[in-house]
Amino acid sequence: MAARSFAQQERLDWLRLIRSENVGPITFYQLLARFGTAQAALEALPELAKRGGRERPIRIPSRAAAERELAALEAVGGRLLCRDEPGYPATLRAVEDAPPVLMLRGHAHLLERRMIGIVGARNASASGRRFARELAAALGEAELVVVSGLARGIDASAHEGALAHGTVAVMAGGVDIVYPEENRELYGAVVAQGLAVSEMPPGTEPQGRHFPRRNRIISGLCLGLVVVEAAARSGSLITARFAADQGREVFAVPGSPLDPRCKGTNALIRDGAHLTESAADVLAVLEGMGRPPLGEEPPESAAPPAPEPAPSELERARRRVLEALGPTPVPVDELLRQTHLSPAVVAMVLLELELAGRLERHPGHRVSLLS
Amino acid sequence: MAARSFAQQERLDWLRLIRSENVGPITFYQLLARFGTAQAALEALPELAKRGGRERPIRIPSRAAAERELAALEAVGGRLLCRDEPGYPATLRAVEDAPPVLMLRGHAHLLERRMIGIVGARNASASGRRFARELAAALGEAELVVVSGLARGIDASAHEGALAHGTVAVMAGGVDIVYPEENRELYGAVVAQGLAVSEMPPGTEPQGRHFPRRNRIISGLCLGLVVVEAAARSGSLITARFAADQGREVFAVPGSPLDPRCKGTNALIRDGAHLTESAADVLAVLEGMGRPPLGEEPPESAAPPAPEPAPSELERARRRVLEALGPTPVPVDELLRQTHLSPAVVAMVLLELELAGRLERHPGHRVSLLS
Repeated sequence: MAARSFAQQERLDWLRLIRSENVGPITFYQLLARFGTAQAALEALPELAKRGGRERPIRIPSRAAAERELAALEAVGGRLLCRDEPGYPATLRAVEDAPPVLMLRGHAHLLERRMIGIVGARNASASGRRFARELAAALGEAELVVVSGLARGIDASAHEGALAHGTVAVMAGGVDIVYPEENRELYGAVVAQGLAVSEMPPGTEPQGRHFPRRNRIISGLCLGLVVVEAAARSGSLITARFAADQGREVFAVPGSPLDPRCKGTNALIRDGAHLTESAADVLAVLEGMGRPPLGEEPPESAAPPAPEPAPSELERARRRVLEALGPTPVPVDELLRQTHLSPAVVAMVLLELELAGRLERHPGHRVSLLS
Repeated sequence: MAARSFAQQERLDWLRLIRSENVGPITFYQLLARFGTAQAALEALPELAKRGGRERPIRIPSRAAAERELAALEAVGGRLLCRDEPGYPATLRAVEDAPPVLMLRGHAHLLERRMIGIVGARNASASGRRFARELAAALGEAELVVVSGLARGIDASAHEGALAHGTVAVMAGGVDIVYPEENRELYGAVVAQGLAVSEMPPGTEPQGRHFPRRNRIISGLCLGLVVVEAAARSGSLITARFAADQGREVFAVPGSPLDPRCKGTNALIRDGAHLTESAADVLAVLEGMGRPPLGEEPPESAAPPAPEPAPSELERARRRVLEALGPTPVPVDELLRQTHLSPAVVAMVLLELELAGRLERHPGHRVSLLS
């Protein structure tokens, strides 16, 4: 099924569902696959959470609350874009935990172009910042849209270099919340000539846990990610890992072993990232990759709703899954082998536990019980 | 045949043969293979050159001249070491064009230890020099002997860092000729605590063409070569190519793309050199390699003399080889196919032409005619 325009009602349902307690993107798409629409999923949520063992009712934003969020977004000139609507970038849609809703402020059409991420150290050297600025300008010149995180240092320089060609800033907090404050002027220029993007409600102040979530959007939007200066164990390396996991090309700029800001990029090169000294190095790799296939792949949520397992069967399954689970993450496949249950039944039980706040999902399709 | 001690007569013959006109190391070993001893080769030289088409007699140093060279070497406290003598390093002996004679000044026993080359830019940055010094000290600490070229910049820093552990300087000119002058004090320290090595006669002032020849000795002595800062198309890259051709490990230190002194090292990493940030990176690669197998492999020159082809056969062969040769280098294998001659006959004809100054040898067993 190709992307289709949403009625305002459906858009509000998507927003309510992703803002519901214990619903992350993966749970969101599982609910959509099972119940067909966000509206039907919203109706099923309280019962599912209860069956998962939750005592207090699960918190679901009211329709009025969703309308207020949308109004706040529109008040700053922003608009909402759902994953299955036209204009949602195909590269990001291909990511398992793509944001169900994006909040956009600026020139949304930039999302339909080929994108390249440039990220790096906040305490970047003068030469690192200069390199990022020139690289971004050259890649913009080559009609790539430069994506970054509007952080201090490399991020800011990348946006500056790419401004004239259109650049995308992915915000860790609300699409209207500038962080750090020193980038307020740059933010204004990005919104005027480029695009700011966030999955968080307007007005949200960014917190530590938001940054890795933000980084997966940066890498998810892009064909490739260039890391310019990054210390060992830095946020840029997390973004690079997302990029690699998402099948994106990873580029890294080498630097002196005596500069701790280059430990991370040198390690990436050692691990197979493309050694990058100029825009030409990036373009040579991306050359054969063509434009992203916008709207060609049917989104997974378009599958017809699966039949609900019988209550007695679910009850037995719940016991067996709970017995097999513990605080150590186990692969879902192993859970299937141990419990001799059908994938649909195990998926339903895990969904219930997750909505009840008792289950945690881990990379590599692994799950663990929260105590 | 294991390495054996030479009588003074044989040492003088080797010296005379390698100092003869148109005799390079490869020709030297071919002559030795054909005639069994340097003495027999010296006797055959005039006739071979004449058959190759030479009109003036080929210049061969007298025994007295060789004695004078040896005396000059001994006057500066140096000594001669021939390729087939004990103590000649096995790694260098394995190289096709290993120097038949080495002139040594200092602690010759260092040649029996595991060696690592460190080379790089003459106009090195302060941080590049510091890195080279610290790397050399750490590798010396790990009982590797650091080899370099006593040039300005990285070379000098590598020797300085390794001095206390013993270091080997390979000289482009005579073993007693310091170049550049600013390294005179360092040279004194190297000779006192380490070793200076050259294949050139004492007193030879280094010329441009000597440096690539010197570089092949640096890489030939070592298990691996570390390049610290090198511009594009620099001498250090030539040494790295020798190292790769000789089957040595190549290590390169990354650097900023904005520093032209790092273009060469970054290119090496792109081409597969080990990205190197510390001595640990070098040691990890060399760990499994063990000590060089000193004196285990029989040198090629120990083969019995081959029978001389009949004069009439050689005459026909000479015409056919000359017809097949031109100014464009051709592989010797192709020459064999085109002429339908035996390898021994073609080798003999090529040797004659070379001694006559009419043939040039190229990498990859290719030859061309000099006009």
